[in-house]
Amino acid sequence: MEHNILKGLKSPGDVKKLNYEETLTLADEVRDTIISTVSKTGGHLASNLGAVELTIALHKVFDSPNDKIIWDVGHQVYTHKLLTGRYEDFGTLRTEGGISGFSRPNESEHDIVYSGHSSVSISTALGIAAANKVSGKKNYAVAVLGDGALTGGLIYEAINNAGRMKDARLIIVLNDNGMSISKNVGNLAKRLAAMRSRTGYYRLKAFAEKALSKIPLVGKPLANKFFKFKTKVKNAMYQSNFFEDFGVTYMGPIDGHNIGQLCNAFEGAKVINGPVLVHVNTIKGKGYSPAEVNPSAFHGVPPFDVEEGELPQSKNNFSEKFGEFLFNQAAKDKRICAITAAMSLGTGLKRFSDVYPDRFYDVGIAEEHAVPFALGLAKGNMVPVFVVYSTFLQRCYDQLMHDCALQNTKMIIAVDRAGIVGDDGETHNGIYDTAFFNGIPNITVYSPSYYTDLNNSFVNAIYHSEGPSVIRYPRGSEPYMPEGYTCSGKSFDVFGDEDAEIAIVTYGRIFSDAYKAYEKLKAEGQKVKVIKLNIIVPIPEEAVEALMDVKKIFFFEEGVRSGGVGESFGSVVLENNLKPEFILTAFPDCFVGQGKINSVLKKYNLDCDGMYNTIKETL
Amino acid sequence: MEHNILKGLKSPGDVKKLNYEETLTLADEVRDTIISTVSKTGGHLASNLGAVELTIALHKVFDSPNDKIIWDVGHQVYTHKLLTGRYEDFGTLRTEGGISGFSRPNESEHDIVYSGHSSVSISTALGIAAANKVSGKKNYAVAVLGDGALTGGLIYEAINNAGRMKDARLIIVLNDNGMSISKNVGNLAKRLAAMRSRTGYYRLKAFAEKALSKIPLVGKPLANKFFKFKTKVKNAMYQSNFFEDFGVTYMGPIDGHNIGQLCNAFEGAKVINGPVLVHVNTIKGKGYSPAEVNPSAFHGVPPFDVEEGELPQSKNNFSEKFGEFLFNQAAKDKRICAITAAMSLGTGLKRFSDVYPDRFYDVGIAEEHAVPFALGLAKGNMVPVFVVYSTFLQRCYDQLMHDCALQNTKMIIAVDRAGIVGDDGETHNGIYDTAFFNGIPNITVYSPSYYTDLNNSFVNAIYHSEGPSVIRYPRGSEPYMPEGYTCSGKSFDVFGDEDAEIAIVTYGRIFSDAYKAYEKLKAEGQKVKVIKLNIIVPIPEEAVEALMDVKKIFFFEEGVRSGGVGESFGSVVLENNLKPEFILTAFPDCFVGQGKINSVLKKYNLDCDGMYNTIKETL
Repeated sequence: MEHNILKGLKSPGDVKKLNYEETLTLADEVRDTIISTVSKTGGHLASNLGAVELTIALHKVFDSPNDKIIWDVGHQVYTHKLLTGRYEDFGTLRTEGGISGFSRPNESEHDIVYSGHSSVSISTALGIAAANKVSGKKNYAVAVLGDGALTGGLIYEAINNAGRMKDARLIIVLNDNGMSISKNVGNLAKRLAAMRSRTGYYRLKAFAEKALSKIPLVGKPLANKFFKFKTKVKNAMYQSNFFEDFGVTYMGPIDGHNIGQLCNAFEGAKVINGPVLVHVNTIKGKGYSPAEVNPSAFHGVPPFDVEEGELPQSKNNFSEKFGEFLFNQAAKDKRICAITAAMSLGTGLKRFSDVYPDRFYDVGIAEEHAVPFALGLAKGNMVPVFVVYSTFLQRCYDQLMHDCALQNTKMIIAVDRAGIVGDDGETHNGIYDTAFFNGIPNITVYSPSYYTDLNNSFVNAIYHSEGPSVIRYPRGSEPYMPEGYTCSGKSFDVFGDEDAEIAIVTYGRIFSDAYKAYEKLKAEGQKVKVIKLNIIVPIPEEAVEALMDVKKIFFFEEGVRSGGVGESFGSVVLENNLKPEFILTAFPDCFVGQGKINSVLKKYNLDCDGMYNTIKETL
Repeated sequence: MEHNILKGLKSPGDVKKLNYEETLTLADEVRDTIISTVSKTGGHLASNLGAVELTIALHKVFDSPNDKIIWDVGHQVYTHKLLTGRYEDFGTLRTEGGISGFSRPNESEHDIVYSGHSSVSISTALGIAAANKVSGKKNYAVAVLGDGALTGGLIYEAINNAGRMKDARLIIVLNDNGMSISKNVGNLAKRLAAMRSRTGYYRLKAFAEKALSKIPLVGKPLANKFFKFKTKVKNAMYQSNFFEDFGVTYMGPIDGHNIGQLCNAFEGAKVINGPVLVHVNTIKGKGYSPAEVNPSAFHGVPPFDVEEGELPQSKNNFSEKFGEFLFNQAAKDKRICAITAAMSLGTGLKRFSDVYPDRFYDVGIAEEHAVPFALGLAKGNMVPVFVVYSTFLQRCYDQLMHDCALQNTKMIIAVDRAGIVGDDGETHNGIYDTAFFNGIPNITVYSPSYYTDLNNSFVNAIYHSEGPSVIRYPRGSEPYMPEGYTCSGKSFDVFGDEDAEIAIVTYGRIFSDAYKAYEKLKAEGQKVKVIKLNIIVPIPEEAVEALMDVKKIFFFEEGVRSGGVGESFGSVVLENNLKPEFILTAFPDCFVGQGKINSVLKKYNLDCDGMYNTIKETL
């Protein structure tokens, strides 16, 4: 398909100049671009296809970047990127140095904030609206969020606060595809479903006339159809709208694939005093039938064949393996329960949820709730296993402190995507949980390198541990394994030369590369001892004792340096008065951008060559 | 007052044996005990006085600990403690080794979880109800929470999940005193107020008859008055009850000081299938008129004179001083905004809120919202200052990472109650934020020792810093200051003997004791260098350079050891190949119990004597 209109767009101002027919063509071009690009780069497909018309309408009605659009999570932002001058570079999507799959202020003035985590957009937009109020600016702050974001409690804190800022120029666009990341959870989802199915109406009261006078050219013919009072219908239908309970004016539902209707709704929202929520119905995956049929699977995808419309499947990764181990234990032990925060597919829990629905809890994007809920299960003599991505686990730091560590009750936190995640970049890397858990008492943290370690850690956590345990494992599949490797089940293992004066200490996935570096050094006649920590918090002190006669310790850590495991290990070394050289390689205090996992590890000297060179340089 | 009934209570079973008249006397005795004890020990007064009848009714109706009562926050738990065998020890309230002011499983089997933070009770109770369901137990899980807890988003995550567990034996008791910790915020508060003012009704449908047959002796005469259908009234009043929106049956409002009504309501709730919310109206401070008149001031109190009913006032503490500095800057700089999470009194913001209401935001117990909201303000060219207790800051770890550090926008987080807080104990100590911030990139952390440092840090954060800053300061007043001390405004300062072979490194409040230890050693002829870190994250590397010729470094840290500042400092020392002895004294990986601040610091060798002895032992 030619992208004649899209090519010509340099800024949202150009979108405003398009007539209605041209916007329809634009939508087709955008969809074509998204499908063909994502099929090559991977990325968030279904959510972006659902937001095409919505985004075009936003840029027709609002004046970005003076009006500020905040994209919740940011995984629906591809159309926005294409309309704001990034069409030419869009082929670099999610590649190293290329366009991010999320909102990134360093790419464009139209990306107001860095985004990647759910349910914060209303808070930020409300802050902008509040600042505009103080400084007397008349611009709008617009938050665009999906229905999944509504399962996160942060949204309610924001709506509760928004509702009382009566004159805030805040517009909340709820992109409701009735799906969330997998399926929506909770009673709220039912309410939304009921609202979705209503015949369209706007709640416009006396300002309808005023709004009508402001309708832009596009969609004018549609205006009369929708912009009229339906007070009686409204009163009948309007009970128990929880948005209005909180003081936010509700408009909707709007057909999210009808640009005219969308523009009218947004224009209408602009003339309402105070915060407004525009409820937009969209179809997740719209315009690409395999994604429409199976939107959950096409939420985030690897590269795929557009014609075939089938996604490559792999069971050979840590997530699937953990799901399998969990399933197997649950079959034997009826106390085992699984909890996910809207990530049952990504964390390998599908089979568990099918076979043991009575012990499976998908709490929505509600990581905070998950932990005290797990505590309750534990107090009821169950063994709760909360499976969660490292980056989203950050949401429940306080609950891990207060409702897990302090209680010192058996509970297992399975931390998926620990370490570098690759293409999703700085908002999704799991390189902070090591420092995070390091400063929380009472929790034992396992960091397996292989599937066999993973299963062993899990069994230990269930049957040999009284208190809470964390098991952290990386995205992707098992790395290179030394010949004859078996899992010892101990807190650490020693490999290589017993009498070496040089030692490598490491843990997790990169043990594999450390071992390769050792083999390379060994081939050169260099003696090296390799210590593989299986438990990283607390530091196994005997591992330090095993370094008594060593002159140089090289600690490699796939985690942030400050506050991390390496520094703690170093402090134990110092206190034992061993006084070797101690060279710590970890991520500096920064955010790490997108790129293939191996490439990122290489960049920070955490691959085999990097480790080898780090050691060679000091010899 | 004699406490004849109270003295005889050994367990909640004894409460069940009391007749109605006796429960009224019991309530008087409980109130008398609470007022006289708290007037001596300090503690949460008003909230406990409001929950006396409520608690008596709970223990009459439910079978603790088989039915499990979860107290949100736990600062309303005094009556519960008195009814569960802790009357004799109650005089030790909040003293070292004594009865805690919060729920503590190590005190009693009736305290199900450790508590101290808000808005988690429903999640935990739901977990217990879910476990009961799996294991076939018929017991109830009861969550008791105040209206303030409803401003925390975690509650919504819990209610949203509770609503779909249709057969959960979960009862939520909403103790609504219309106050929260200070005044309630948000539109929700208005809704609750509207619900409070309705004439009482129960929503009992067909099970009313069944419930009636189960009414206990107490309150039987009241039953008929309240247990009848009011369907018409209900339908008229029942629109937009957001609890029912979420699938939770609503009962209320109930007079929270009428034991009969309360017992009947709880019995009614037991026979309802699925989760129920019982809305109870109480008067905060009930029974002690100074507290009824000024419930916010009497929420948490120091020791006071019962007859006078006046609270000692002090402006000589870090909180009041920060409030003053903030006020003064805001008078000069119109960009400065203040945000609090329901703690405007505790953090010294009262005057700011009175004089600059347009730049003051009390977001409720919604720390998570506060940070992205501050980001929005910053994006609108304001300078947001979020003032928050260290322990509650834990709630927004992810937002500090994602919406503060990653954005790298100017924003100030003022962390009050950093370090040991004393009487409130393990759930309130601010000894983790050091490790917490250590692992988050881009944030500069100031740790002032004196008021003058505090003001200087604040001015630096506003005018000399591009990115986000944290300023952490302790509870209480300024400690001993060396003669002639002035604030240098540098990232660290060096005191004592330039050519010493022994160095003390420390920061924050305990610099004062470190300096005293130095003086004591100096008097003995021992040369010591003292390094006072003013910025603790990132480590000022020049401070390490100032230790080039030192043989022994003693690092003292009023924070958790693992992942803390001392370990990071030590790792820089190691990397510089300085190889001195490095002796780190900090809090081990544990939770630190209640006690006077000085006493706790002494226990962990962080007072003058402890530091002195630690140093002397190695000489």
